Amino acid sequence: MRSHGAQAAHTLALVREKRPLVHNITNYVVMQYTANALLALGASPVMAHAVEEMEEMVSLADALVLNIGTLSGPWIEGMIAAGRAASRREIPVILDPVGAGATRLRTDTAVRLLDECRVTVLRGNASEVLAVARGAGGTRGVDAAHRVEDVVEAAEDLARRRRLVVAITGAVDHVTDGSRALRVCNGHPAMGTITGSGCTATAVIAAFCAVNALALDATAQALAFFGVAGERAARVSALPGTFGTALIDMLHAVTPDRLSDEARIEDER
Amino acid sequence: MRSHGAQAAHTLALVREKRPLVHNITNYVVMQYTANALLALGASPVMAHAVEEMEEMVSLADALVLNIGTLSGPWIEGMIAAGRAASRREIPVILDPVGAGATRLRTDTAVRLLDECRVTVLRGNASEVLAVARGAGGTRGVDAAHRVEDVVEAAEDLARRRRLVVAITGAVDHVTDGSRALRVCNGHPAMGTITGSGCTATAVIAAFCAVNALALDATAQALAFFGVAGERAARVSALPGTFGTALIDMLHAVTPDRLSDEARIEDER
Amino acid sequence: MRSHGAQAAHTLALVREKRPLVHNITNYVVMQYTANALLALGASPVMAHAVEEMEEMVSLADALVLNIGTLSGPWIEGMIAAGRAASRREIPVILDPVGAGATRLRTDTAVRLLDECRVTVLRGNASEVLAVARGAGGTRGVDAAHRVEDVVEAAEDLARRRRLVVAITGAVDHVTDGSRALRVCNGHPAMGTITGSGCTATAVIAAFCAVNALALDATAQALAFFGVAGERAARVSALPGTFGTALIDMLHAVTPDRLSDEARIEDER
Repeated sequence: MRSHGAQAAHTLALVREKRPLVHNITNYVVMQYTANALLALGASPVMAHAVEEMEEMVSLADALVLNIGTLSGPWIEGMIAAGRAASRREIPVILDPVGAGATRLRTDTAVRLLDECRVTVLRGNASEVLAVARGAGGTRGVDAAHRVEDVVEAAEDLARRRRLVVAITGAVDHVTDGSRALRVCNGHPAMGTITGSGCTATAVIAAFCAVNALALDATAQALAFFGVAGERAARVSALPGTFGTALIDMLHAVTPDRLSDEARIEDER
Repeated sequence: MRSHGAQAAHTLALVREKRPLVHNITNYVVMQYTANALLALGASPVMAHAVEEMEEMVSLADALVLNIGTLSGPWIEGMIAAGRAASRREIPVILDPVGAGATRLRTDTAVRLLDECRVTVLRGNASEVLAVARGAGGTRGVDAAHRVEDVVEAAEDLARRRRLVVAITGAVDHVTDGSRALRVCNGHPAMGTITGSGCTATAVIAAFCAVNALALDATAQALAFFGVAGERAARVSALPGTFGTALIDMLHAVTPDRLSDEARIEDER
Repeated sequence: MRSHGAQAAHTLALVREKRPLVHNITNYVVMQYTANALLALGASPVMAHAVEEMEEMVSLADALVLNIGTLSGPWIEGMIAAGRAASRREIPVILDPVGAGATRLRTDTAVRLLDECRVTVLRGNASEVLAVARGAGGTRGVDAAHRVEDVVEAAEDLARRRRLVVAITGAVDHVTDGSRALRVCNGHPAMGTITGSGCTATAVIAAFCAVNALALDATAQALAFFGVAGERAARVSALPGTFGTALIDMLHAVTPDRLSDEARIEDER
């Protein structure tokens, strides 16, 4: 069996060959950056949120991103409509519960999307994942201190109950489907100095899941790729403005061979 | 009579002298980039979409951009109100039918804007222009293969029937008012690697039309200018992040003299 | 007593130590740039506008930015709800009346926000401040020519009557609370070549006011810091694309010591 790195390289090559159309319903802050990231890595982005066109737009898409970063009523309706259409068509749905836990609207919307759509991958930071796990009725007794091990446990429980992949991103990323678990050790602290790096990771996951039906592996591969691009961008500049630009450059420049060499994906369990 | 290049140079110099106010109702993805592009080239951008302020805002503007990239009900109403106000005031209206053909909402909205406003220039890629031409009742029998010649024919037919200028942008741009036609051969493939380069072209057309009432020529001149800036930016970087930044730089740095020398506008018919 | 520069340095160090959460309800054009600017300088941005989550989101925030750049009905309701919640909690509210004077909707909304919330700082250019001052019923007889002295007088009158700090930004910034007045002479003309530099100044003021309760001083310090970053960015590039990126870099790179040396804040009265 090929190494994780070689498999990641294969998925990246497939993205660049197939140029999957990723439909994003995402927040205003990161729309441009997300679109540029998807274009740079070789996918094809579309942004659309009006409920009237969700059915048709999803019918053209190879993956759907639902990101709740700047939520409002009409956008929630668009997300639900798109998520249901994607579920019926068995297109991967990637949910980014930005700010879950900060307000009830966000936690409740994330849980509602889990309830009403067949979400393939949920990606968030530790506190977002924990908030969704709790909101979805799973994590009794996890303390508020957000110890990584506890969040990982909550994520595995959520993944099992909801039959999805959960990715907790941070200095080290944890990806689990409730039975298997992978750890991704790529990335650079500079990625935390620009807005929307988490949201961009979510979009990269969508592009990888669009061409690789093994969602657990595709998610870890996407995070490794995004992390390798971040590591290379940080060699160009440690300052956030030029780093953000270099990260887009590197999403374009990192080759499958490079990814194969530099991906640090490990079996966690 | 002066060459197309010399005329383009004259229009660019006028933009920089008069600093026309370009009112944009455009999509969320490209708003910042569009505003920066307009500022860089010497125009003055304003973004506003609320129906309550459309009449007043349009009364201050020298040109209006209507871009349907991230459509929703309230924005359509804003576009209609602004488009009508601009029509009454005889301010040029530049329509960018982003994604026409992909969903009925987009095709129908583009056609509705053509019906209810006096659109001066319609700019899209081949499939968008074809979708609008079909939606507007003109192009029976054009096959789905989107052969460039067929799209050009549909564009000429649309231009004649609706009395507007149609610009099909791509590797080569075709601009027609139904009787005359111009071809613009500037540009660089890197422009396709960043989001919103088409939308930015539309905004540049608006700035040029604001100071040059010959809409056919102004449109070709704007596309040549944008293409020259793209060519120069591509010499700075072939990677999409730094290319996108360099393109803004070059919209500022390309002088009328440079444009005169490098514009490649040809009479097509 | 320490110099203005030394005090500015102290406030900047506090921002970087405390990483205040700045809640922004701002316009679509500048959201990404504003978030990146806040992250770069050491604060923590959040963007949220839905009326349903305003109470909770404000309860987490250390400062609130209200920016009316791309206004619409639901966003006004979000701003009012957030502004009231911030007023009750005595969190600083920074109002940016983008385009006040251009349309009634903008002028009226700015005045309504002043009426219904306890605004801490109002920042605008001369014509915006004048429009708000007139709309708020204060500046009878100020001529339309916008002589700087007249606008400064109107600002002082507005500051006294409404008990807030007013900042008029331009080549030289004037900051007043109606009794004291400071002048800030930092900045660079290149800042006017990118979109949203005024909006970014407003967000920087919010970050400084979050950690320094002396709003008059905090505002002048923020403008000096932003100006110093702009001066340094202009040494990197005079072209607007790369300048905009360099400005984000410099918001990160300017140290308290550097600010102490280079801030040009003067007592005006």
